[in-house]
Amino acid sequence: MKNILLTIEYDGTNFHGWQRQPGQRTVQGEIEKVLSKLFRQEVTITATSRTDSGVHALYQKANFKGDFGIPTERIPLAANNLLSGDVRIKSAEEVDLDFHARFDAVGKKYIYIIRNASYDFTQRNFCYHIEKQLDHQSMKEAAQYLVGEQDFKSFMAAGGKVPESTVRTIYSANFTLEPIDKGRKIVFEIIGNGFLYNMVRIIVGTLVDIGLGKISASDMKEIIESCNRSRAGHTAPPQGLYLSEIYFDYAELKKSLGGVNK
Amino acid sequence: MKNILLTIEYDGTNFHGWQRQPGQRTVQGEIEKVLSKLFRQEVTITATSRTDSGVHALYQKANFKGDFGIPTERIPLAANNLLSGDVRIKSAEEVDLDFHARFDAVGKKYIYIIRNASYDFTQRNFCYHIEKQLDHQSMKEAAQYLVGEQDFKSFMAAGGKVPESTVRTIYSANFTLEPIDKGRKIVFEIIGNGFLYNMVRIIVGTLVDIGLGKISASDMKEIIESCNRSRAGHTAPPQGLYLSEIYFDYAELKKSLGGVNK
Repeated sequence: MKNILLTIEYDGTNFHGWQRQPGQRTVQGEIEKVLSKLFRQEVTITATSRTDSGVHALYQKANFKGDFGIPTERIPLAANNLLSGDVRIKSAEEVDLDFHARFDAVGKKYIYIIRNASYDFTQRNFCYHIEKQLDHQSMKEAAQYLVGEQDFKSFMAAGGKVPESTVRTIYSANFTLEPIDKGRKIVFEIIGNGFLYNMVRIIVGTLVDIGLGKISASDMKEIIESCNRSRAGHTAPPQGLYLSEIYFDYAELKKSLGGVNK
Repeated sequence: MKNILLTIEYDGTNFHGWQRQPGQRTVQGEIEKVLSKLFRQEVTITATSRTDSGVHALYQKANFKGDFGIPTERIPLAANNLLSGDVRIKSAEEVDLDFHARFDAVGKKYIYIIRNASYDFTQRNFCYHIEKQLDHQSMKEAAQYLVGEQDFKSFMAAGGKVPESTVRTIYSANFTLEPIDKGRKIVFEIIGNGFLYNMVRIIVGTLVDIGLGKISASDMKEIIESCNRSRAGHTAPPQGLYLSEIYFDYAELKKSLGGVNK
């Protein structure tokens, strides 16, 4: 019996999210179909993060167990030949039998791309387009209130499975800016030990409302403390969101934090 | 009888190019299907440029004639409701009955996007990815040989309809650079009175070969003069190419050149 861990990337545009659903094209469904064909047995995979419709992953992790004839290192090529172009297995490795892609993750990084510039049709599925210039300094200031172990209930959407606790730890929340087409591409990077349902999108929506002057930066503290979804801003659309890194040990996570806090 | 001119944008990824083909999803085919439904009569549209599979258009023009009950200004909204998200009619206007989107165009601008940076999976359909750093100065130098009225036979692919003449006028050929993800986004802009089959992609492929040091910049003159396709470089892939502007009068064209030559 082997336990195989895959690193996967996908363009979420034409998927109904990660999770298998009858009659829908999902990332899990497509990969399981291909692996089942390849291994001539039913394969079920478990991902670290069940991303929503339209959300992308530069780096998703998923594991599955079984007895397989194909050498582990050949899995990516064999599977990619059968997968359509919008999902790709980047690598496969054998891990301990008790390793679990979801429960063993100690942290995740998401990035969210805001195109604060003129509309670009071909980028419509890959960013949140905001024409009006955002006050980036206020957004940056507000984002600092997010860091730490806190109850993030204000940033949890209804509709998901209600978790036992809504307390999460955010290790870092940073912005980088790049000039683009006479405007700016604003990249928000957030690293945490876990995220509630739609949490990153509601955080970004709130920061955008702050950047637009609808909410003041100093209100962020109060919004968090209120534990009230209606105090936070709007939910940013899925297509700007990218699952970008997953950490299975604290050393890795720390290293990444060193790189982010620039 | 009205003659209606449409401005159209599309993401070419999931189209087999512009031109209607039985059994294939094409931009012309999709728009004609929707307009025919809307107007309850068969509609045939003529575009300025018949873009290839995978090529995008930020600004395509196409006209069609007929007697229609729907006011011209309502066509975009009505049609866009029926069209899928990867093609959009930006505007519709009435033009003289003898106006022809292809024959009346005096110039076109194409842009070609090279991602000279690390690979980005979600950008795979929207740029030519080249990891190795390109010598941008050599490419710029070589591009200047393209400007003027010349025989561009060296940059014509086999397989298209052979034109009466392979002489075209290139008004400008410029590069702009933007920093992106620790690399650069190189945008090549070319304006001409017309382009041969695959001409922009072969020009870009040749410039990339120059940027990689496989061809020297000063060879460009000779490559043009040879009128020999095998002297030019490779054909750059379609997904980096965007039809970006069409000019129907010289005043407009001149204005655009003023803006490009910076």
